Amino acid sequence: MILKNFLITQVMFEIIKSDLRGRIAILRTNHGIIETPAYVPVIHPKNQIIPTKKIQEIGFNLVITNAYITKKTYGYDAIKKGIHKIIKFNGAVMTDSGGYQVLKYGDINESHDDMAKFETDLKADITIPLDKPTGYGLTSNVAKSFVEHTLKISKKVLKNNDSQIWVGPIQGSEHLDLIKYSVKSLLKYGFKMLALGSPVELMESYKYKLLANIIVEAKNYIPHSIPLHLFGAGHPLTIPFAVALGCDTFDSASYILYAKNGRYITEDRTRDLSDMQYFACNCCVCNNLTPKELIELDKNDKINKLALHNLFAIKSEVDRVKEAIHEGRLWEYVLKKARAHPKLFEMIDVLTNNYNYFSATTPLFKKKSIFLFTYEDQYRPEVISYHKIVRKFKTKKKIVVIIPDNGIKPMYLSSDYNYLNKKFSKTKSIQFCRYNQFLGIIPIEISDIYPSSHYDMANIEYNPQSLPVFEETWKKFFENNKFSTLYTKHGDKFITYFTNKLSTEITKKTLRK
Amino acid sequence: MILKNFLITQVMFEIIKSDLRGRIAILRTNHGIIETPAYVPVIHPKNQIIPTKKIQEIGFNLVITNAYITKKTYGYDAIKKGIHKIIKFNGAVMTDSGGYQVLKYGDINESHDDMAKFETDLKADITIPLDKPTGYGLTSNVAKSFVEHTLKISKKVLKNNDSQIWVGPIQGSEHLDLIKYSVKSLLKYGFKMLALGSPVELMESYKYKLLANIIVEAKNYIPHSIPLHLFGAGHPLTIPFAVALGCDTFDSASYILYAKNGRYITEDRTRDLSDMQYFACNCCVCNNLTPKELIELDKNDKINKLALHNLFAIKSEVDRVKEAIHEGRLWEYVLKKARAHPKLFEMIDVLTNNYNYFSATTPLFKKKSIFLFTYEDQYRPEVISYHKIVRKFKTKKKIVVIIPDNGIKPMYLSSDYNYLNKKFSKTKSIQFCRYNQFLGIIPIEISDIYPSSHYDMANIEYNPQSLPVFEETWKKFFENNKFSTLYTKHGDKFITYFTNKLSTEITKKTLRK
Repeated sequence: MILKNFLITQVMFEIIKSDLRGRIAILRTNHGIIETPAYVPVIHPKNQIIPTKKIQEIGFNLVITNAYITKKTYGYDAIKKGIHKIIKFNGAVMTDSGGYQVLKYGDINESHDDMAKFETDLKADITIPLDKPTGYGLTSNVAKSFVEHTLKISKKVLKNNDSQIWVGPIQGSEHLDLIKYSVKSLLKYGFKMLALGSPVELMESYKYKLLANIIVEAKNYIPHSIPLHLFGAGHPLTIPFAVALGCDTFDSASYILYAKNGRYITEDRTRDLSDMQYFACNCCVCNNLTPKELIELDKNDKINKLALHNLFAIKSEVDRVKEAIHEGRLWEYVLKKARAHPKLFEMIDVLTNNYNYFSATTPLFKKKSIFLFTYEDQYRPEVISYHKIVRKFKTKKKIVVIIPDNGIKPMYLSSDYNYLNKKFSKTKSIQFCRYNQFLGIIPIEISDIYPSSHYDMANIEYNPQSLPVFEETWKKFFENNKFSTLYTKHGDKFITYFTNKLSTEITKKTLRK
Repeated sequence: MILKNFLITQVMFEIIKSDLRGRIAILRTNHGIIETPAYVPVIHPKNQIIPTKKIQEIGFNLVITNAYITKKTYGYDAIKKGIHKIIKFNGAVMTDSGGYQVLKYGDINESHDDMAKFETDLKADITIPLDKPTGYGLTSNVAKSFVEHTLKISKKVLKNNDSQIWVGPIQGSEHLDLIKYSVKSLLKYGFKMLALGSPVELMESYKYKLLANIIVEAKNYIPHSIPLHLFGAGHPLTIPFAVALGCDTFDSASYILYAKNGRYITEDRTRDLSDMQYFACNCCVCNNLTPKELIELDKNDKINKLALHNLFAIKSEVDRVKEAIHEGRLWEYVLKKARAHPKLFEMIDVLTNNYNYFSATTPLFKKKSIFLFTYEDQYRPEVISYHKIVRKFKTKKKIVVIIPDNGIKPMYLSSDYNYLNKKFSKTKSIQFCRYNQFLGIIPIEISDIYPSSHYDMANIEYNPQSLPVFEETWKKFFENNKFSTLYTKHGDKFITYFTNKLSTEITKKTLRK
């Protein structure tokens, strides 16, 4: 049943839970709701290999197909049937208009107005105007003309078209000022969903870090209530980062394109079937065949089964990411995933350089403790949030005691604190603190605020020179509070590095136990 | 069909492929062959929940059951049936003798000779004598008495028992001298398979690094031809490290124990079902149920389905590890896996501190390029092997040119080399080299030896102070070769750090392009 005009009564896009910039949300369309983040499989309007019914069974409730190819294949007869009947899918359908074909094969011979009308008449749930992708490597001026062209077309399609979700295509690629200009213009026109264009060329040349910076730039101007689609990003390698950066849906024909090339999708890459010995997957294809047996099938059967596995593999990756958001471990998940390829590893910089961007949508309290491994983790949003609290901490006490974390949390429950408390019982007004390499100084009064007592950490030696976040908090803590005496643990090399940086006005003493 | 006395004609344990200390191998038993590394599910001789037939269908060809509980339950009647009929399994069966029960419930009231005879008569394929586990935390003297006890029992069982594979139990735990003593004694007695005892307490208290060091110590004295079993290590978290360190089989009841506690096994941990929202698994259980639906099943049905999923999850993990060995990426796999938990992260030290141990069984040439991410990777066996070659490199040339790697490999195909070659065409006898932060100095003559032209690397700034392997090779290179002049690229900060360390006898010049 099609719910017409539901937009009047229900929010189109509703966020349920978020972590970093990733969010689990509900996207409502004329053909049902889609839970995002969602992979949107590309369906061929004529030569679709995996039946759409099977695709829906696997759990994909939104698919994308190409209006341009539909028009070339069926002409205006397509309108009589409607896109859902053509591709035999009763879930939500998105139509692309041929922008990618423009990029790949040069200008296509279609009037933009005709194409927009055709897409409207196909009754797709989500529709994309015929944009002009900037790809990668255009000069600023040429890219600008492409952006202006896309904006002109986009502005027109919105008129008299509120029964579908029209998607505003963001172009500009590496020209970040054009990204900003695209986003601001599209929002002004009234688009309720946006899509970032042209990432395929960046991904094919492993420019993941640049793509990440483009997404951050776009998202900086997009309100939380607007979903963002990422074109052509259907690789398990990039899905977790795309979600963590704030993309809600992403389409790709990867499942079938790789299958046609004999490539098998794993968590981290695609593999040539002939290189493989074991399937570490429990899907219905992999449970019944070895790589050798799969290779020996008839060509069509092989492509079909491989494509089916690829869909299952992508579905799993999306579910792992969703569960990571649900569990509050998306940071851990993407930092682990970064080790899938050295070029993906470069994206970590985008996470550590934009902690304010990620803090804004990361919960301040989580059910589970956070895991702290190495230097990147000092930029984790929960960690930075705690530093911000401590950087405002003020006390009038004159003596400060800073001891290492002994693992018993919070500090006021630990035996070393009790020992010191007794030892100093005759001295009044002591500011007790412990420290942790990542979380910085932890004053006892706020030693139970998340995550100062909610973390697991590796017992390894960390280099104080590689912990600038600690250093900044240390500096602020001693600027904001006028201590006359500082006690630290005797022989504590890590903390000595920082005490040596203090001005000489403070008396430094060490504690022996 | 049971192949009797096959041991005479075929090798019991045959290694097919290895990477780090992990190996894919064939273990031949009276009930068929087992490909290792293999997870060995624990089967209860009476109250087994998942039918052994199903377990075999999933792909487990070796199971373990408890001879002590079998004797308590069925008495000497068990001998008439034989263990295979009792547990209804026609694959290979291993029997444990109750050592773990000794550890958990104190001494059990069994004569060791009786127990050994009973195990022999049960006709299990692989049998473990009744050992006395040292657990964790015993004084050296007490641990030694346990080891002596275990050795005494073990020595006896081998007599007249060559139709089965008897496994020699290594005890000693954190007392590394006792580990060595155990291994040497058991090998002297003639055991063809060994098992490392008592890791459960170490794993339960997250002492993974200590466990890793114990495995390395044991393996140091075990020939490659002897398979090593690890007791009670059936967690996806520890399986990759156990394999990389050299364990071939590992048993556990984890699949059912976790299921009884409502816990679901994922790649990296176990989760409480009630905390979960999404199943990112494509097994027959997860494909048909949501976490919420699974929770609401009847208790027995729930445990059954959860245990089944847990078995599939463990199978997948083992297959991922096997495929990583096959692909030559076990190093990458375990370093990524280390990010599953901070305590697992501590095990990286064991990999970087024992590179000779791992080099011995890591192929010198691989089909695929290696991925280089960060400082640990300087200790990767393939990298260390290349450094060893360069540290022996000798030339009589007097001028050396060392330029950064421009990504075109090997060096002699790159444009910057061609440019320099022309530039210096009038100067004779120039030693051209490039450098790479991880692989060190790469002289042009050996710039195509694996992996000097077979790597992908992140484009990030590495700190020269954290690259001692580079520094050592640099030092040796300039000691072994008496250069009068060194050219480096103008403005290359990384290499300047090292040129500044050179003696003043050499003339330092920079190249401008």
